[in-house]
Amino acid sequence: MSCRTDPLPDTGSGPDPMLRPAPVTPAPVAAPFSLDLRVYWEDTDAGGVVFYANYLKFFERARTEWLRGFGVSQEALRLKESAMFVVSETAVRYLLPARLDDLLRITVVPQPPGRASLTVAQQAWRGDTLLAEGTIRIGCVDSQSLRPRRMPASLLIHLSDPCA
Amino acid sequence: MSCRTDPLPDTGSGPDPMLRPAPVTPAPVAAPFSLDLRVYWEDTDAGGVVFYANYLKFFERARTEWLRGFGVSQEALRLKESAMFVVSETAVRYLLPARLDDLLRITVVPQPPGRASLTVAQQAWRGDTLLAEGTIRIGCVDSQSLRPRRMPASLLIHLSDPCA
Amino acid sequence: MSCRTDPLPDTGSGPDPMLRPAPVTPAPVAAPFSLDLRVYWEDTDAGGVVFYANYLKFFERARTEWLRGFGVSQEALRLKESAMFVVSETAVRYLLPARLDDLLRITVVPQPPGRASLTVAQQAWRGDTLLAEGTIRIGCVDSQSLRPRRMPASLLIHLSDPCA
Amino acid sequence: MSCRTDPLPDTGSGPDPMLRPAPVTPAPVAAPFSLDLRVYWEDTDAGGVVFYANYLKFFERARTEWLRGFGVSQEALRLKESAMFVVSETAVRYLLPARLDDLLRITVVPQPPGRASLTVAQQAWRGDTLLAEGTIRIGCVDSQSLRPRRMPASLLIHLSDPCA
Repeated sequence: MSCRTDPLPDTGSGPDPMLRPAPVTPAPVAAPFSLDLRVYWEDTDAGGVVFYANYLKFFERARTEWLRGFGVSQEALRLKESAMFVVSETAVRYLLPARLDDLLRITVVPQPPGRASLTVAQQAWRGDTLLAEGTIRIGCVDSQSLRPRRMPASLLIHLSDPCA
Repeated sequence: MSCRTDPLPDTGSGPDPMLRPAPVTPAPVAAPFSLDLRVYWEDTDAGGVVFYANYLKFFERARTEWLRGFGVSQEALRLKESAMFVVSETAVRYLLPARLDDLLRITVVPQPPGRASLTVAQQAWRGDTLLAEGTIRIGCVDSQSLRPRRMPASLLIHLSDPCA
Repeated sequence: MSCRTDPLPDTGSGPDPMLRPAPVTPAPVAAPFSLDLRVYWEDTDAGGVVFYANYLKFFERARTEWLRGFGVSQEALRLKESAMFVVSETAVRYLLPARLDDLLRITVVPQPPGRASLTVAQQAWRGDTLLAEGTIRIGCVDSQSLRPRRMPASLLIHLSDPCA
Repeated sequence: MSCRTDPLPDTGSGPDPMLRPAPVTPAPVAAPFSLDLRVYWEDTDAGGVVFYANYLKFFERARTEWLRGFGVSQEALRLKESAMFVVSETAVRYLLPARLDDLLRITVVPQPPGRASLTVAQQAWRGDTLLAEGTIRIGCVDSQSLRPRRMPASLLIHLSDPCA
């Protein structure tokens, strides 16, 4: 793609500020959390590569396991505390294609959380090649009213811990 | 979620420039092209609403029909000209949830195209309620080498036409 | 395992009774209901054709619109009557591949319903070419307990009507 | 669902022979191969459970890893030998729902293969509870012409080996 050989400008001159490159985040070895996953037929499209929308699924799988590492079960949250995480914004840049049978490493790098929202920087790597990267903003809502509520304390404790 | 009742700042103070609001685009009635589609079980998740990643699918369906209106068949492009559109960047903001059986209107507002890339602003509406909006950057590549190539002339002609 | 050391019980032709051909159903022109839909990138896989699992989605879209024709809104059922249709069995045979941009016609031919279940024969056509056909068994359950309950009367009335 | 509390008849008297129950097979511990996977948001629908069509994806992930265990890489097959596996028939029975965060075990039990097709019995378990089971028929085709061809020898060797 053009953005491979001809990187997007860092200036604000682009047609849309949402399309500026994400800040470069550390390689997976440096990321506090990563999930390895395999590319299956279901993930690909007729172009012979992973369908771009599916990186949002890959990123979410990694966030889910990252949360599980804090003892946060989203199904328990939903059924017992009627709390639910909702994605409020996503921005993803697709650099190189992933193919069937590729083993991908998805990284999770949280930003300092707000009271009812959290921003996470994520990347998809094949070996030491960065394939895609993005930023996901998550809110916490009541699962019935879908109104915003505070993040679970069990999560905030970990996110405010620099060693998390 | 928080970004519904408390809009994101328009300043550059956010943690990530990619997460700034998209420029407000015209209501669907004013959009040069829109596609109506129905929300089915396949589109929803356990939250009872449309799974956020699926808006990228909805947006692409609308872009595909918009291209078809120009006589651009992507399968013909791929098989006969070995040209293929690839999405290089996506930025989407999710404002309000869509539910099973909702009838959505997806709009397509192209930005002035480059030689090998095109940026499209898109929105998802339920009646006169804006549910999601985003910006999609598309490149044109050779379907074998996946290397960038010029956009099909048949498309460029229409995009440079203000009446397109 | 028993099915490893012993062949599946074979009361007729074919290695597996679950895999016998479905009874031939009428061509789309004769079907009481059909839905036309387009094949998009999201539906395809790296084989360049529609991913087989997605025919279950196509079939469901057609059933949903077929039910809507009876005034049955599944979201209203779920939220107001806490009734929900669940698929209890599917059997699909894939005959010929569908490709990007294909226009498909999905047919719906209901079988005589039971008190809590309904079987529907469905086919996917491209023009006069049959691409896939299958049989879907649907049950009606309480959306909270997921226990079986009677089909909505509004639906049964139509299904017991030979002109439905 | 009715088929949970009231099993389908074993006789041929059902409306469709494809919908006969599969023979009950032993617990996953007895299966020659199984894959454990987690249920994520992407897998669920507004019913709060796993969308039934996604069991076909789960089954395929397990078959793919089962094939990988034989040294069969489908992407290598497709690109180097232009051979591709295609699913020609699927029959699945859904017994009990899976939910977000569930850990599922997917089993693979191959039937004696033909020259150009293979039938696999698969099940989805949560602990010692059987949630879904089905039979998948796979053919091998040329990835360009999509015409049937012999199964890869590397695979046949293993399938004709009772210890496989």
